[in-house]
Amino acid sequence: MKYMKKSFKAMEPYFSKNIDDGIILNANESPFNVPKPIIKGFFKELKKVSFNRYPDMQNIKLCESIAKRFNVKPTEVTCGVGSDELIETTFKCVLEPNDKVVSFSPSFSMYTVFAEQCLAKFITVDFNEDYSFDVETMINTIKENKPKLVLICTPNNPTGAFLEETDIRRIVESTNALVILDLAYIDFADYDYTNLAMQYDNLIAFRTFSKAMAMPSLRIGYCISNEDNINMINAVKAPYSVSVPAQIMARIATENIHLYNDDIRAIIVERDRLYIELKRSFNVYPSKSNFIYLELNEEIYNALLNEKIYIKALKNNKYRISVGTKEENDKLLKVVMNYEK
Amino acid sequence: MKYMKKSFKAMEPYFSKNIDDGIILNANESPFNVPKPIIKGFFKELKKVSFNRYPDMQNIKLCESIAKRFNVKPTEVTCGVGSDELIETTFKCVLEPNDKVVSFSPSFSMYTVFAEQCLAKFITVDFNEDYSFDVETMINTIKENKPKLVLICTPNNPTGAFLEETDIRRIVESTNALVILDLAYIDFADYDYTNLAMQYDNLIAFRTFSKAMAMPSLRIGYCISNEDNINMINAVKAPYSVSVPAQIMARIATENIHLYNDDIRAIIVERDRLYIELKRSFNVYPSKSNFIYLELNEEIYNALLNEKIYIKALKNNKYRISVGTKEENDKLLKVVMNYEK
Repeated sequence: MKYMKKSFKAMEPYFSKNIDDGIILNANESPFNVPKPIIKGFFKELKKVSFNRYPDMQNIKLCESIAKRFNVKPTEVTCGVGSDELIETTFKCVLEPNDKVVSFSPSFSMYTVFAEQCLAKFITVDFNEDYSFDVETMINTIKENKPKLVLICTPNNPTGAFLEETDIRRIVESTNALVILDLAYIDFADYDYTNLAMQYDNLIAFRTFSKAMAMPSLRIGYCISNEDNINMINAVKAPYSVSVPAQIMARIATENIHLYNDDIRAIIVERDRLYIELKRSFNVYPSKSNFIYLELNEEIYNALLNEKIYIKALKNNKYRISVGTKEENDKLLKVVMNYEK
Repeated sequence: MKYMKKSFKAMEPYFSKNIDDGIILNANESPFNVPKPIIKGFFKELKKVSFNRYPDMQNIKLCESIAKRFNVKPTEVTCGVGSDELIETTFKCVLEPNDKVVSFSPSFSMYTVFAEQCLAKFITVDFNEDYSFDVETMINTIKENKPKLVLICTPNNPTGAFLEETDIRRIVESTNALVILDLAYIDFADYDYTNLAMQYDNLIAFRTFSKAMAMPSLRIGYCISNEDNINMINAVKAPYSVSVPAQIMARIATENIHLYNDDIRAIIVERDRLYIELKRSFNVYPSKSNFIYLELNEEIYNALLNEKIYIKALKNNKYRISVGTKEENDKLLKVVMNYEK
């Protein structure tokens, strides 16, 4: 790549092949489409759109709906192309070259990419052996390294671990760094703490419409924090990024959030069933998300591939299985349970 | 903005109020919606979409359509959230802090923002007095400054000036820097030179679906260059950015590009009429785009606002008027032509 600057020479494209046939359990997608009444409302509004006009760059109507849901002000919300765009923008806002970022590891793979692009130093804190969060080591690492940014993804991708509110508070209170609280999978956990972001200057909560809200196809997420932090992100992010269809469907979904209850409950029931079943034969870690983190091996992975069942292969014989429908999970278990521990 | 890094302290959000009532001639939008058969095909496909699945991150089908149109390989095309995302990514790929960028000025306002975000030095070359491109000064400025990136927007936003192919070649051949050829408005010019990008290692052509293709609401653009440059952009840009609705409508539009001919011709006819009419009383500059650059004053601007006619106010009593429908332009002229030169 002749024109790539020196500091980026090692960059490589993230690649995930598009799969449109088989059982897709590799991307933490919802196995259920957006609820029908929301889709119906979406098409009704979309038919009236003048496609030749730019979107509302402030996403005003959507921010108002989100603000109402969380009992905050619309100016304490901003929207982006998935929560990814907003997390990336926050990295850009905060990090000068050689600044430090601390994150639990393993976590969302894009964090390291965003840090690399800012030429920042990425410092990791391992999970405990049982893949629970090691909060003590995190707090000590923060004290030693004085990072500008601390990352907490809870429930954590790809491990599924859930960090209790008291532990989040301990971490946030231990540092002057800005803390990114990535709540992409929070709808599958026992409770939500998005509003924690309103209690600390240095906390931003990021949420997405791509997981429980089932619309990754539209690319939309948001974050909530005090106005100062929201203004900072708005000052740096691309002015027009969220498309009109995304703004419409996300707003209708937010106003009808109860319509997701059955699907979310079904995913949680299936997650807990998968956990119990897989636990009989494999090392499986507790999950409060819509996926299961476990140890398998290449033989099993290939046996699944043979049946067109796609799961995510990670390092050191670890795998991540997104929770599918009951039928999809049955098919997965049928293949996997042929193998002993 | 407490957590904003020092080098970004001066950043401010780009702001453009959403207008949904009146005559909107301030954003270089097409006054015509996407042609009906394209919208019909779009809704037909969109109804079959599983919204709970991520988009194809490679935009394969769309890249194939675009490649076919320009007789290049699909691997010589990549898509983004408007051409903006791709231009911004190219800046990130190429520019280390203090590297130089050379651009004609005035030009697309986001160029300076992208350069600022890379902490690069932005060097400008003024237009000639008649707002034609000053190619000699550009070539000399490149020689003196040895930039990493050269920007050519043609037809230029906001002046409307068109750079001849021979002049583009002269600039590209004068430098080892990567040249960004921003062709957002090329569909309104006398001929297209997107394919020039295939003749030089150091040239990338950027195009958008937001202007003549009339779908800024969906946020989609693309660029064409050799595989090495396309790989570079793909290595740094966000993996999932272009939404499924955008991919679908852009593909149908590309496969039915002839359906835009009447609308584009109507815009060109109206542009040339506006030019002739306005020229009677004002300093107006020749335009090969879908807007007119001219000198007015605040009194006229306010008189237009009073009639809910929105145009873009720029520096030094310069204004940019996007070409509307015949009826819209008539209403504009009725107000403006009350004023003498």
